[in-house]
Amino acid sequence: MTMPVTPLLAADIIIEMVDRPERPIVLIERNNPPFGWALPGGFVDVGECLEQAAVREALEETSLRVTLTTLLGCYSAPQRDPRGHTVSAVYVAEARGEPQARDDAKHAALFTLSTWPAPLAFDHATILEDYRQFRHSGRLAPLRLPG
Amino acid sequence: MTMPVTPLLAADIIIEMVDRPERPIVLIERNNPPFGWALPGGFVDVGECLEQAAVREALEETSLRVTLTTLLGCYSAPQRDPRGHTVSAVYVAEARGEPQARDDAKHAALFTLSTWPAPLAFDHATILEDYRQFRHSGRLAPLRLPG
Repeated sequence: MTMPVTPLLAADIIIEMVDRPERPIVLIERNNPPFGWALPGGFVDVGECLEQAAVREALEETSLRVTLTTLLGCYSAPQRDPRGHTVSAVYVAEARGEPQARDDAKHAALFTLSTWPAPLAFDHATILEDYRQFRHSGRLAPLRLPG
Repeated sequence: MTMPVTPLLAADIIIEMVDRPERPIVLIERNNPPFGWALPGGFVDVGECLEQAAVREALEETSLRVTLTTLLGCYSAPQRDPRGHTVSAVYVAEARGEPQARDDAKHAALFTLSTWPAPLAFDHATILEDYRQFRHSGRLAPLRLPG
């Protein structure tokens, strides 16, 4: 059969630093376009599962070994990534220690729920708003149908 | 930039017939390889979000207009689809009426939690076991890391 063309696939990770007060999360400042602050994450390789991709990307960009806890949701709006239609599975994860920016990340820094940096790349402002709700209520990301 | 190659992306749907006793679900018998019974679903088009793909595929294969209720989980093991590495977002949905097989589906039939048909294509036995747990406990699909 002819294989179809489908959107690109990425995994992004909301890393909670569980050894700090208020359990801050890690954001990175991107080295490549689109610039701005963003969740650590990246494209999934053929041959690795989503969970592996999330753990690998977290390590590559923040030097942290994370333990995934929850699938917050999937984000798939066609315009969310200016490079082309990319669907992201977003995981919540736990880590301890000191993040150090590497690879695609220029800086890594910790932020609490009340202080996101700006601008945030992609649709990460939406994702972080969903995460804020999740922290408050335990509710996962809502399903979204356009129109 | 050079765009990466990532796994293919699909959406599958567990359609609960909410107008019937025991809320049975719809499975289809596939017209194309891999043969066997399976959840309705298919590849996501570039330019449509996952939720749209799930609603579209449900309609195309079962003639049912579904309302999505929950993202059960993402299934991404590299060997789960013999046609090549395909990641599936699996939604639970509700519908009323009479399913009628169309498109990629040879037959559509209703099954309760106690009676899956065999063989099931892809990793749909795993997905349906997760769904059985979800029906019992409300717990979503577990995260899975190999090894």
